Amino acid sequence: MVWLVARFGWFVTYAALVEGVVLLVFMGYVRYDTFYDVNKWNYTRQHGHSTPDLQTFYPILQEVQVMVVLGFGFMMTFLRRYSHSGLTLNLLLTALTLQLAIITRGFFTTDRGFINLNILSMVDASFTCGAVLVSVGAALGKTSPTQLLLMSVLEVPVYHLNSHLGHHLLAAVDHGGSIFIHTFGAYFGVAFSRCVTRKVVHHHHHPNNTSSYTSNLFSMLGTLLLWVYWPSFNGVVESGRSQGRAVLNTYLALSGSTMGALITSSLTHKRRKWRMVHVQNATLAGGVAVGSVAGLMIQPWGALLLGYTAGSLSTLGYTHLQGWLLDRFGIHDTCGVHNLHGMPGLLSALVSVGVALFASETNYGKELYLQYPMMVPAANTSFQQDLDDLAPGEGRTAGQQALYQALATFITLLLAVVFGGAVGFLLTFAPFDPLTQPRLYTDAPWWELPEDGEEEELIKEEVSNGGVRRIFNIQVGERGGGRGGGARLPSLRDGE
Amino acid sequence: MVWLVARFGWFVTYAALVEGVVLLVFMGYVRYDTFYDVNKWNYTRQHGHSTPDLQTFYPILQEVQVMVVLGFGFMMTFLRRYSHSGLTLNLLLTALTLQLAIITRGFFTTDRGFINLNILSMVDASFTCGAVLVSVGAALGKTSPTQLLLMSVLEVPVYHLNSHLGHHLLAAVDHGGSIFIHTFGAYFGVAFSRCVTRKVVHHHHHPNNTSSYTSNLFSMLGTLLLWVYWPSFNGVVESGRSQGRAVLNTYLALSGSTMGALITSSLTHKRRKWRMVHVQNATLAGGVAVGSVAGLMIQPWGALLLGYTAGSLSTLGYTHLQGWLLDRFGIHDTCGVHNLHGMPGLLSALVSVGVALFASETNYGKELYLQYPMMVPAANTSFQQDLDDLAPGEGRTAGQQALYQALATFITLLLAVVFGGAVGFLLTFAPFDPLTQPRLYTDAPWWELPEDGEEEELIKEEVSNGGVRRIFNIQVGERGGGRGGGARLPSLRDGE
Amino acid sequence: MVWLVARFGWFVTYAALVEGVVLLVFMGYVRYDTFYDVNKWNYTRQHGHSTPDLQTFYPILQEVQVMVVLGFGFMMTFLRRYSHSGLTLNLLLTALTLQLAIITRGFFTTDRGFINLNILSMVDASFTCGAVLVSVGAALGKTSPTQLLLMSVLEVPVYHLNSHLGHHLLAAVDHGGSIFIHTFGAYFGVAFSRCVTRKVVHHHHHPNNTSSYTSNLFSMLGTLLLWVYWPSFNGVVESGRSQGRAVLNTYLALSGSTMGALITSSLTHKRRKWRMVHVQNATLAGGVAVGSVAGLMIQPWGALLLGYTAGSLSTLGYTHLQGWLLDRFGIHDTCGVHNLHGMPGLLSALVSVGVALFASETNYGKELYLQYPMMVPAANTSFQQDLDDLAPGEGRTAGQQALYQALATFITLLLAVVFGGAVGFLLTFAPFDPLTQPRLYTDAPWWELPEDGEEEELIKEEVSNGGVRRIFNIQVGERGGGRGGGARLPSLRDGE
Repeated sequence: MVWLVARFGWFVTYAALVEGVVLLVFMGYVRYDTFYDVNKWNYTRQHGHSTPDLQTFYPILQEVQVMVVLGFGFMMTFLRRYSHSGLTLNLLLTALTLQLAIITRGFFTTDRGFINLNILSMVDASFTCGAVLVSVGAALGKTSPTQLLLMSVLEVPVYHLNSHLGHHLLAAVDHGGSIFIHTFGAYFGVAFSRCVTRKVVHHHHHPNNTSSYTSNLFSMLGTLLLWVYWPSFNGVVESGRSQGRAVLNTYLALSGSTMGALITSSLTHKRRKWRMVHVQNATLAGGVAVGSVAGLMIQPWGALLLGYTAGSLSTLGYTHLQGWLLDRFGIHDTCGVHNLHGMPGLLSALVSVGVALFASETNYGKELYLQYPMMVPAANTSFQQDLDDLAPGEGRTAGQQALYQALATFITLLLAVVFGGAVGFLLTFAPFDPLTQPRLYTDAPWWELPEDGEEEELIKEEVSNGGVRRIFNIQVGERGGGRGGGARLPSLRDGE
Repeated sequence: MVWLVARFGWFVTYAALVEGVVLLVFMGYVRYDTFYDVNKWNYTRQHGHSTPDLQTFYPILQEVQVMVVLGFGFMMTFLRRYSHSGLTLNLLLTALTLQLAIITRGFFTTDRGFINLNILSMVDASFTCGAVLVSVGAALGKTSPTQLLLMSVLEVPVYHLNSHLGHHLLAAVDHGGSIFIHTFGAYFGVAFSRCVTRKVVHHHHHPNNTSSYTSNLFSMLGTLLLWVYWPSFNGVVESGRSQGRAVLNTYLALSGSTMGALITSSLTHKRRKWRMVHVQNATLAGGVAVGSVAGLMIQPWGALLLGYTAGSLSTLGYTHLQGWLLDRFGIHDTCGVHNLHGMPGLLSALVSVGVALFASETNYGKELYLQYPMMVPAANTSFQQDLDDLAPGEGRTAGQQALYQALATFITLLLAVVFGGAVGFLLTFAPFDPLTQPRLYTDAPWWELPEDGEEEELIKEEVSNGGVRRIFNIQVGERGGGRGGGARLPSLRDGE
Repeated sequence: MVWLVARFGWFVTYAALVEGVVLLVFMGYVRYDTFYDVNKWNYTRQHGHSTPDLQTFYPILQEVQVMVVLGFGFMMTFLRRYSHSGLTLNLLLTALTLQLAIITRGFFTTDRGFINLNILSMVDASFTCGAVLVSVGAALGKTSPTQLLLMSVLEVPVYHLNSHLGHHLLAAVDHGGSIFIHTFGAYFGVAFSRCVTRKVVHHHHHPNNTSSYTSNLFSMLGTLLLWVYWPSFNGVVESGRSQGRAVLNTYLALSGSTMGALITSSLTHKRRKWRMVHVQNATLAGGVAVGSVAGLMIQPWGALLLGYTAGSLSTLGYTHLQGWLLDRFGIHDTCGVHNLHGMPGLLSALVSVGVALFASETNYGKELYLQYPMMVPAANTSFQQDLDDLAPGEGRTAGQQALYQALATFITLLLAVVFGGAVGFLLTFAPFDPLTQPRLYTDAPWWELPEDGEEEELIKEEVSNGGVRRIFNIQVGERGGGRGGGARLPSLRDGE
């Protein structure tokens, strides 16, 4: 292994290893689902099949894919010297997580020893990417590609374990994944970031940890794509009435959080100015906050108010909580995922507890049993007249369902913090390419940047013209905005 | 109120006030449509419902949403020092207008005192955003966020009044909203811009009112999104044959206007060069020009020719008309919405008059009565054999229908100019945060910009090194392209 | 003609001429398909119609349109001084090719002398744009707009001829167009680029032929859009089982090529760094490589492995082959389309030969005859029990089908190279606005750039301050990153 790393470099060694194992598992266990398997052509033509319909999910899945690949990707370009890495790491981890998620989800849903690949595998895989990329956001710029690669490998199984517990054992309702995706991803990421940087001196104002005018605009591209497509994220696995409400509620919640974020952003600035970091993030908090209950009867005004609250809360997180977490606990959260995904996710979980608590046949009619399947009695008789297509449940009361919602949230937090911290701690050891201080928030160690050559010439020229040094310095400061310019930092990596 | 503004700032005071009122109206009057309302579960299962189907409209609506949020948003980044504001004001006004439009449209379509929320509410709300954002384009960079916020609040009811008059009372045909959205939005905006800047010295060549190489590319992102998704805009509320023609005609019209814009752009430059402002705008004129008649029998070559004409006309607007309007009438139109939405909108209206004039059963067959429902006789008997699903109309002749098309256009122009001007005039008074000269086309007064700190240091350094002033000046000129750099302008706002 | 060019310029003359002819052909021959033609209202209501359904194709077509207009467009912004041209030429050629493709495809599918316009005309036109834009990539920055315009006019008929031969006469299977679109486009483009620049001194390191930090990010926007929407490209004309496999295989192939590209990129750099050109291109190679066989039974692991191989191969193309082709054959390929579309396209063709060779009823069941319709016996009897909806074929064996796949690939290569070269050679003659050396890779000759005025002033200032020349030089070098800055090159074009 040491020889491999010395010969091929950290990333190549680990990435090839992981990809090789994934490929072997695919060879052994992953196959097309029944309908797509030509060997079952005759069988499916006669007996039908249970493969989910492509057309039902594909257009909405594609919107979720845009959110994952372009939305999260461009949001991560806000660091002015780390934009190449932000975009590329996002794509790398998406590609890898899609493969890993098919396997680990398949582990929980095997069919006679095989993993059946269908469009819902991809929907789930896309969601898993969401959780992983939220976690990445907390540690952006402070980790090596190898560390993030290994983080994904270790996070994906925990994500599926938690998701399986929550959805199938606890039967908690979480339409848009605010508990199992956003809360999980955010707290996993924050704990990971805390532990993976334990050898790193902390940094309120690292000179590279800033945005530029241009990087802010690229970042807004990500934000706006998420803003537009979020109703699909919250509605993709819903159907019928529930899908309709999920879409409408998400539109309203995002409208609300945009107003909340902009009002609170102005209010918390001494000269009543806006800050781009709030626009880039807190405007989306409504999508997270409405997630768990997107398809439920929260009423249009409820969605609007919930969004507004989340937008304000998220903005306050950026202005007040983030600094305090760093000072008090040494937690540095690069993208502020705790403010966008963590707190609004918990708010959504809390609302899902409340909504469950007050859910009854009086205010939900018979649809109660569609929304909360475990509230159907175990031995159902009388309901079968109206609800003849529903499977027997556990006959939970509203209070019990509320308790299960809370329990699912608690387990999510627990697994996220414990495993996130453990993974972070593990990856600080030498065999996992840990990052040390001088290489923070810059593309320079990882990229052959466009101006490498040009810049070296400039430096040479400068040396032979000592007198213009100051002028050159201004220039270098100036360059940072539009380019990487980081080649002045030591660009030879230690281990190579 | 004065105390509130002094304490919280203009934007916070007005935005919170408006949002609070909207929330109260939502609480009192807005509820889910029948199908989504669980209390009507039993009723809708037995008796059915008339709630429009989500799946029919959602995918196309999402394309329109991309146009509104990303298309218009990125088009407004072309001002090199005002890109943060362009994107954020676009998002703010979208979020607010979505809420306002649900209410004001609901006013015209209440159901026993309540406003039913469904997917068509969102389609209409998205269209309303289109009209408001077109208006914003004319006044971009010359108004405060508070003024634009109040403009939306006042424009939305006028938009719905005009739209209601045109669609329901006059039964004018306007598939893609070229009359009721583009023409209305453009002339409202131009009149607003004229009046809201009456205290401002006019400016052929304000140094901030320019684009940069990078801001031009961001702006093209908006243009290209609009170009691709425009067929959805023109076809979303159509169905069947009419939708098919709307989509095909819009593809062709956009192809035509792209050719027309590029040819005319080159032709009007003394050295036969292109200008980005033409590519960013006039290439889209075909989408506007074909709008009113998108689903009608204008023939493929008709769509192509109409698009080509609109692209040329729009380009000529930028090269010739825009300067004349400023010199002659003091009308300054930042984005040139009169060239992209105003004139092509009127062209579309004119074509819709002509198409109606020549519509007859000979050239339309029985579909005539689907396209022009008011041409169905009032007491229809013989038609019911073939058209048994059509409601009785007014038995209009083709000439009468053409007259109604013209009348709807005239009323649209009248309402747009009168109300646009009045709203602009109103918002120049002190209680509405009017903008004065030195704060034009720059993010500086509204944003904590990324380089604020850095730039202050540079200025300090410059002062203590008087000799390098000239060099620094070049630098400052240079910086503008990639950053805000506006902090040198007075960044303390008067009223705060 | 000479007078026209002298009076109106090259582009205006040729573009107006072409557009005029297109318009005349549209007037004479192009009409709406039956269902959309109101004159056939009664007929289609009684007898039905065979017009393809809008809703089946429209949402997926729109994703392909995004790939064409924004995906290819933004990928072409990577040249730091040629981004305006990249985006605009892409839009211009898309607009023109959409019109041309309707005509030339129509030539092969006329219906009683007329060309019927429907949604499949647009799907085909969008694909044709793909082929043309791939070709453009090879010659980007080394040709005048007029040359590219004429190239499209001449390439489109050859594309349709080849596509018609391959699909209809040879019945080669090529789901995602890897042979008929990517391979054809790439080799046409490479041959065109070789011949059209025969008077140009070749250039390993032309100072303008580079990217900047910002232009790399714009280019990634194109890449990521292609990445997300590629499953639609490969699946749009498939249906049922085949469409499901096409979508799933494309997701996996792209995941694989992303891993392959990043691993190989790092491996081929002496300091194990990544290069953006690999991320921007080679990550997509999986989509090309899986194209020909996207809907076939290649198994999930097969798709993954094929993608990985293509990603590696494409990266090696950039690092090794591209320089060799330039040194050895004088082939300069600006975007490296041979690496992204050429080689992976050939790989896909090769795989399609192999897959056909091993296709049998044993491993495909009866679906064999759906996938390879020519394998249905000419006089089919026994099969009609199971496959009663299949037309008689030619009773090809697997080996014969494999041979036809190979033959189609060979003919594609032949036509592409011969016509690409011939068109390139033709357009080097004086009447077609050939480009000479000093105007390479820069927007300056074609655009009125935002800083023209400013820059002229700086140049004037520089002249009168000879002493600061060196400082100014650094500045100029610096400016390039964020702007065109090319105005220092001779901006007056020869022929005007």
